[in-house]
Amino acid sequence: MNCEVAFQGEHYAFSELAAQKFFPNDVICHPTPSFEEVFRNVNDQKIPFGIIPIENTIHGSIHRNFDLLLEHDVVIVGEVNLRIELHLITLPGVQMEQIQTIYSHPAALEQCRNFLSRYPHIEAVSSYDTAGSVKLISEKKIPTIAAIASQWAAEDYGMNILQREIEDYPENYTRFFIISTDYFSFGNPDKTSIVFSTKNIPGALFKSLSVFFLRDINLTKIESRPIKGTPWEYLFYLDFFGNMEEEKCRNAIRHLEEIAEFIKILGSYPSANNFATKSH
Amino acid sequence: MNCEVAFQGEHYAFSELAAQKFFPNDVICHPTPSFEEVFRNVNDQKIPFGIIPIENTIHGSIHRNFDLLLEHDVVIVGEVNLRIELHLITLPGVQMEQIQTIYSHPAALEQCRNFLSRYPHIEAVSSYDTAGSVKLISEKKIPTIAAIASQWAAEDYGMNILQREIEDYPENYTRFFIISTDYFSFGNPDKTSIVFSTKNIPGALFKSLSVFFLRDINLTKIESRPIKGTPWEYLFYLDFFGNMEEEKCRNAIRHLEEIAEFIKILGSYPSANNFATKSH
Repeated sequence: MNCEVAFQGEHYAFSELAAQKFFPNDVICHPTPSFEEVFRNVNDQKIPFGIIPIENTIHGSIHRNFDLLLEHDVVIVGEVNLRIELHLITLPGVQMEQIQTIYSHPAALEQCRNFLSRYPHIEAVSSYDTAGSVKLISEKKIPTIAAIASQWAAEDYGMNILQREIEDYPENYTRFFIISTDYFSFGNPDKTSIVFSTKNIPGALFKSLSVFFLRDINLTKIESRPIKGTPWEYLFYLDFFGNMEEEKCRNAIRHLEEIAEFIKILGSYPSANNFATKSH
Repeated sequence: MNCEVAFQGEHYAFSELAAQKFFPNDVICHPTPSFEEVFRNVNDQKIPFGIIPIENTIHGSIHRNFDLLLEHDVVIVGEVNLRIELHLITLPGVQMEQIQTIYSHPAALEQCRNFLSRYPHIEAVSSYDTAGSVKLISEKKIPTIAAIASQWAAEDYGMNILQREIEDYPENYTRFFIISTDYFSFGNPDKTSIVFSTKNIPGALFKSLSVFFLRDINLTKIESRPIKGTPWEYLFYLDFFGNMEEEKCRNAIRHLEEIAEFIKILGSYPSANNFATKSH
């Protein structure tokens, strides 16, 4: 079967690498200019799957994608973690002394903060994509501009890696969600993501977490986002181990309904158990 | 007394407006190019106070400032909430049809997403500051560029407000912290901010929140941030009503020490009680 996946960015972006890791056989990846369009393509069933970065272990959560998960009729059907190795990429033959500007995605620039601080005369410029920055330099053939991106992007655009692994922390991973309009099994769905808002009662967040603790359900992540139009109130995004077919998870959500004003189940999916995950 | 305050951005930025609201008399505001330098100026006691945006009711938290609070020897001594009204600002006499580009801070552009979507031919370009974008247009006298910024910035640079209040949600507030190196009383300190990480035990976050719930201490905000270099582990930032002089708060923190691997008290300060705050 050929899987088709929409991702944000140009070919050889980290999202496309993550899609290749998740769908090892015959995946067709569609470069898409924005996260909004990835969601729209999936929501409107133009492309069956989308892949979106959701958090990075240095930069933190990609909050826009939390908001978009809430706003669209999509479900999470998988997750994948990808080690992010960032390289300084130039036209072949360019030396460090020639570089005046470095282009990359703001998250990649932030992950190389220490590296960049060693070259205060070089201007760091935000672009919409890591691989897109490499493409730009390769097309315009500008020797004074470097990009920060993956090895794959460097190789495929015929560019040179001037400095390898320039990220501040080697333990740099990005977690991606695979989204679709319908539940689709990629294995045992042992993890679930939900979003909810609480009633205006004292200890509402504590009581919300108790519905999981009382049933020995381990949380792996909590994220809060403002409720737009209602100042100082928040939506909470939770990930926990378990799936919505299990009785204890259904009971926990029924209990949560007593405390929550709103709940949306974002999906049960097989966890990316490549890396140990701490319980909260 | 003349208070001196460092803020990120150019004169007439929202941070300077917030400083004027917090220190009504004789405040001297120092424009500073980055949040890092605001913290450094305060940390190194070059300027006694700093003001930093910490969350916006549409855009969400300003995560970089959470990280910087952890990394510097500063305490939070006050908070202030400011209504954010965003206007489309041009050189005098410019009409909507002439505009090809709109400059503003990425958070301001995001808060005007619906407005911008009505003009798909106009390019939205991120700049480091709202007021700085107005300054740029006024200095370079470019009629095809507009900025999104405050009325104050428009007036002081002699510019025209072409469209008023173009933000998607009128309930648009930014919350700021006032930071210093030492505790400084601006009133009754009824609110406290802390940051902690938990031990690797099941239900650690639930148990951490229980130390407040069990003592009737109301939480107003939780924010999680990755621990850099330790994938999939998080720091939790909590705000609660109470101050560290109160016995129940000291008991709660002593109890939290049993569950937490690390705790830092960021400060007790008078809450900006201009707006109703929901309990969690």
